[in-house]
Amino acid sequence: MLAVMKESPAPGLQLKEVPAPALGPGDVLVKVHYASICGTDSLIEHWAPWAANRMKPPVIIGHEFAGEVVENGPGVDGIRPGTRVSAESHFFCGRCTQCRTGKPEICSELKIMGVDRDGAFAEYVAIPAKNLWMNHPDIPDQIATLQEPLGNALDTLLAEGVVGKRILITGAGPIGLMCAALARACGATRIMISDPNEYRLSLAGKLGADIVLNPKVAPIRESVLTATAGEGVDVLLEVSGNQDALTEALPLVTPGGRVSLLGIFRGPVPLRLTEEVIFRKLRIYGITGRGIFSTWQTLSRLLSSRRLDISQLITHELCLQDFKKGFELMEAGRCGKVLFKING
Amino acid sequence: MLAVMKESPAPGLQLKEVPAPALGPGDVLVKVHYASICGTDSLIEHWAPWAANRMKPPVIIGHEFAGEVVENGPGVDGIRPGTRVSAESHFFCGRCTQCRTGKPEICSELKIMGVDRDGAFAEYVAIPAKNLWMNHPDIPDQIATLQEPLGNALDTLLAEGVVGKRILITGAGPIGLMCAALARACGATRIMISDPNEYRLSLAGKLGADIVLNPKVAPIRESVLTATAGEGVDVLLEVSGNQDALTEALPLVTPGGRVSLLGIFRGPVPLRLTEEVIFRKLRIYGITGRGIFSTWQTLSRLLSSRRLDISQLITHELCLQDFKKGFELMEAGRCGKVLFKING
Amino acid sequence: MLAVMKESPAPGLQLKEVPAPALGPGDVLVKVHYASICGTDSLIEHWAPWAANRMKPPVIIGHEFAGEVVENGPGVDGIRPGTRVSAESHFFCGRCTQCRTGKPEICSELKIMGVDRDGAFAEYVAIPAKNLWMNHPDIPDQIATLQEPLGNALDTLLAEGVVGKRILITGAGPIGLMCAALARACGATRIMISDPNEYRLSLAGKLGADIVLNPKVAPIRESVLTATAGEGVDVLLEVSGNQDALTEALPLVTPGGRVSLLGIFRGPVPLRLTEEVIFRKLRIYGITGRGIFSTWQTLSRLLSSRRLDISQLITHELCLQDFKKGFELMEAGRCGKVLFKING
Amino acid sequence: MLAVMKESPAPGLQLKEVPAPALGPGDVLVKVHYASICGTDSLIEHWAPWAANRMKPPVIIGHEFAGEVVENGPGVDGIRPGTRVSAESHFFCGRCTQCRTGKPEICSELKIMGVDRDGAFAEYVAIPAKNLWMNHPDIPDQIATLQEPLGNALDTLLAEGVVGKRILITGAGPIGLMCAALARACGATRIMISDPNEYRLSLAGKLGADIVLNPKVAPIRESVLTATAGEGVDVLLEVSGNQDALTEALPLVTPGGRVSLLGIFRGPVPLRLTEEVIFRKLRIYGITGRGIFSTWQTLSRLLSSRRLDISQLITHELCLQDFKKGFELMEAGRCGKVLFKING
Repeated sequence: MLAVMKESPAPGLQLKEVPAPALGPGDVLVKVHYASICGTDSLIEHWAPWAANRMKPPVIIGHEFAGEVVENGPGVDGIRPGTRVSAESHFFCGRCTQCRTGKPEICSELKIMGVDRDGAFAEYVAIPAKNLWMNHPDIPDQIATLQEPLGNALDTLLAEGVVGKRILITGAGPIGLMCAALARACGATRIMISDPNEYRLSLAGKLGADIVLNPKVAPIRESVLTATAGEGVDVLLEVSGNQDALTEALPLVTPGGRVSLLGIFRGPVPLRLTEEVIFRKLRIYGITGRGIFSTWQTLSRLLSSRRLDISQLITHELCLQDFKKGFELMEAGRCGKVLFKING
Repeated sequence: MLAVMKESPAPGLQLKEVPAPALGPGDVLVKVHYASICGTDSLIEHWAPWAANRMKPPVIIGHEFAGEVVENGPGVDGIRPGTRVSAESHFFCGRCTQCRTGKPEICSELKIMGVDRDGAFAEYVAIPAKNLWMNHPDIPDQIATLQEPLGNALDTLLAEGVVGKRILITGAGPIGLMCAALARACGATRIMISDPNEYRLSLAGKLGADIVLNPKVAPIRESVLTATAGEGVDVLLEVSGNQDALTEALPLVTPGGRVSLLGIFRGPVPLRLTEEVIFRKLRIYGITGRGIFSTWQTLSRLLSSRRLDISQLITHELCLQDFKKGFELMEAGRCGKVLFKING
Repeated sequence: MLAVMKESPAPGLQLKEVPAPALGPGDVLVKVHYASICGTDSLIEHWAPWAANRMKPPVIIGHEFAGEVVENGPGVDGIRPGTRVSAESHFFCGRCTQCRTGKPEICSELKIMGVDRDGAFAEYVAIPAKNLWMNHPDIPDQIATLQEPLGNALDTLLAEGVVGKRILITGAGPIGLMCAALARACGATRIMISDPNEYRLSLAGKLGADIVLNPKVAPIRESVLTATAGEGVDVLLEVSGNQDALTEALPLVTPGGRVSLLGIFRGPVPLRLTEEVIFRKLRIYGITGRGIFSTWQTLSRLLSSRRLDISQLITHELCLQDFKKGFELMEAGRCGKVLFKING
Repeated sequence: MLAVMKESPAPGLQLKEVPAPALGPGDVLVKVHYASICGTDSLIEHWAPWAANRMKPPVIIGHEFAGEVVENGPGVDGIRPGTRVSAESHFFCGRCTQCRTGKPEICSELKIMGVDRDGAFAEYVAIPAKNLWMNHPDIPDQIATLQEPLGNALDTLLAEGVVGKRILITGAGPIGLMCAALARACGATRIMISDPNEYRLSLAGKLGADIVLNPKVAPIRESVLTATAGEGVDVLLEVSGNQDALTEALPLVTPGGRVSLLGIFRGPVPLRLTEEVIFRKLRIYGITGRGIFSTWQTLSRLLSSRRLDISQLITHELCLQDFKKGFELMEAGRCGKVLFKING
């Protein structure tokens, strides 16, 4: 089968013909219909430190996908071939303290699809049965593919309820755009998003943001304060991983407000804890992964009921052979989500 | 001035010419623009036991309104005449245990506007300054009038978050209709509402309900189970005060689900606690009043941002002289909200 | 091996010599050291309707125990023989909506040890490996045996935090006594308990209750109000299953207070919802089972740190041959917890 | 009357004879029985930047006290002279967004007793009636004096529940010592505290800490990991304001754990957000002030029921004339709480 791989510990990715995956105990074989590129995949392509420290090539990458079950592996039965599925990309051990107390997303032995184990940028992928999510019949494969990253966005948004809240999202990459769309569906009443990329700000407006802000054009401070009667926002969603974005945004959170951090920072970030966090009684939530499977259930319902419509987020659909073009679009920021149509 | 009053301890209401209200310490005089009829006003009109046990006529009734400040009373200053306001109808003492610990809506000494003290079905009303809510410039008076009952509906809905939840509302009176509209704005994904009144079910469909159910036509059980893949609803909002409605709906809540009770029941209600509440680990919330003023803030934002549009809920606008017609419409259930235009 | 069984669908229990249990896939064989009698076991002995409707004899009963692993069944490995264990008695499917969203204690396919499957009043018992809990070395077997019912008590208590709360517990059976001891360890500041059984009230005083109340001697209302400056309690824990107890206690909950229901009622219970739940804004929690394994983790720490000392709760230790005496003590209420020493 | 003052904008404090305070509208005159020194008072004494930027001398300092009501000012009535009181030291406006939505502790117009307005290191102090807290008859004045700082400690501890939690407190000053005692009373099962001051570590052991750690003697990392089976603590309470303490402690919080920040840091603090907060899904709470008056209510009950005994925390009782000795003890760290007996 065809697969996009990190073949060796160096920058770059390769499209290769490889054998279909073998099934271990508890695994299921899934024929991939669609898969999509995550920012993590770009880090792997670049061979960024995070990837270089963790991965052991060769590895087929990719962890956002939708497809159908083809075969049950040893010890699995009852999953009908043809069942439409996506999958939780975090493989949890089920035995550590976190797993035993309802927090598998921070399992001590976490393995990630397409990072620690072969992934979904391929015609077939092997997945532990317990990680499968049955896709709702009213959600087409292209949209179902996005459930995995939507889960990150939803947990970032809903660390606390958002009805009637004024929200600032720093970063309008795919996750930031998803946050904007979700915030709209969940009752937030003022949605601001900042990013230096005008293409993505334009997408943000279509997906639900009320106000788009380009910090390269003007500092966002004045606009945010004007839009909030001088009070600042109730909620900050930091999804850029950009230290300057956080430094600029944190003082714009109103006393008693809340911050979710999902973006990955390089190196320590200096925070004015006393003035900005303590005296203003903020709450800060580190976010990673997504609720297994409570978050999937919520998303499935938002999408199947069409309360959430993110179809405009998908800007490109490529075949696997054109994978380099997909990574170039991501690099340039001239895209929303880039999908690979595989067996779709 | 003109005022609709309960003049004596007996059924009926009277329109009378009375002196404008005197201002006590801390009071503000408000010129009423619009007011609306609540189910409680109908109970007062009938002289139902709840009203007969509590009220000491003569009392001007009415507690849902919007108007403008005319005069500051003794000890109040700084509220500019002309300021557009509505008001929290629950007058709290500020000194009891509940008030001192952030729960004024269940104050031990609670007095209610239009019940224990003269209300707003009049050209002018005196209100404690601390009860005033400044209306947002983007919310017209007719809609601002509805903030008070919307607050009951919002607290009923948001006893817990509703994103991605399947909801059953028993009762499509004004509060039930508001719950449906709010549920839609707050991310609920399947909104069912039951009522024997077809006029109101039709309104419910316009305001955001996905499925309307008439228990006179067919038991709701089968429809609810079909719409939820046999699992039942995650959330039950009981706003009818009808014992049969609760008895029929409670077994339709899925294990781990949640119930909010706002409707007022006559007499004890037999509940199958073991099978329906305990073994299914339900949570039941008694709801009364509304958050002072956290709920008002949320509503003000939902309305001013137009995330919530309840304009279709207002079906009738009358002058105070035609108050009897308003109460007849309420009695017949041939209306959404009935407004009195007073100095509007 | 020896085992106490429900042999046929009729009142009574039998001590029999039976073969050691066979191990299915995923099972582990455990040698039982101690087991204890639960109120449910008494219901089974009587062949109460709940048991008669559910059980399919012959079944070995008993679900509270401590022991050691003897053998790993098919598909299980790595559990060292001799490992000291107890077990979650609720067998969950892992596949239903509740299991997939973190609520296995209300699994749709729930099976209970000693009810739906052979239990622990025997020399050996087969348990799914995923249900095992490793006992802390500082918790002796007799105490470890009580972790399962302590879990019910802890979840009843901690449906909300109790620091500085005034608590009324209706029912001083083993679960009520555990609630009193736990409430003391968790920061409750006034712990009242009511029961008609003076023996158990006396135990309650030793285990942490501040005030013991016998409703046969005097209605509890006056004592509760006196002890709470006329305000009533913040928290009601109903663990008696007695309708009169709930009816008497519910009006004693202060406005804004909370109720946990664990006791099993026969038939519907009439509640004055309007006056007692809605206007007073109470929250009611149905409780069943216990957090898997978050509750076990908390208990293990409370017991191993000796913050919680329930040794006085164990009033009798019998051999399995004397099981009838144990059930007689439970029936008479002349005991705290009755333990069977089996291979201890 | 005698009063300890900051007379001019420079280091030092003065004991002066001054007129008794005048009562403004809403004020009450309180005769001070006991007052205690807070770390903030030391900052004022030093004329640290925080104080220099905020205060406008002359100001009588001190904000922790207990006393009795002497006289009701204009607009106040019904508070019986002789009533034993302490007071919330944060004066809130009651009109800003935070005040109107139940968060007066972060009022936009916050004034602090003994900082922005004359305080309690004097024979008499004027207090807004709405800030008074009636002291429980079973709490002696010396202990009642400590309720204000205990409130900071309790809100730091209870940002989330602590039953069965393993806690690390960085800083064994009076607030850290209070946290240790409170943690014990509230069900925490492993309480560790770190400080370079051996005198205070010794006090910590008496007040409830299980393990005391001196980072000058050895890095705390190994001890914390050993005491938590290598997992780290569930809860970090940072009350030292020492950047190194936070930097050392943050990686010791277990995945899914929680941090409360109360200590005041000078300058920005670099945090490894990605590795320590985001990937480990921590929650961080900035804490300031205390719940008005929910926290006071909880403390009053903990103290009056003697569930919390902090009598050993009071190491010195001086007269106002010896105030310099009190500040020297605080500076040297050779004390727990230092009380001034004034009219006691």
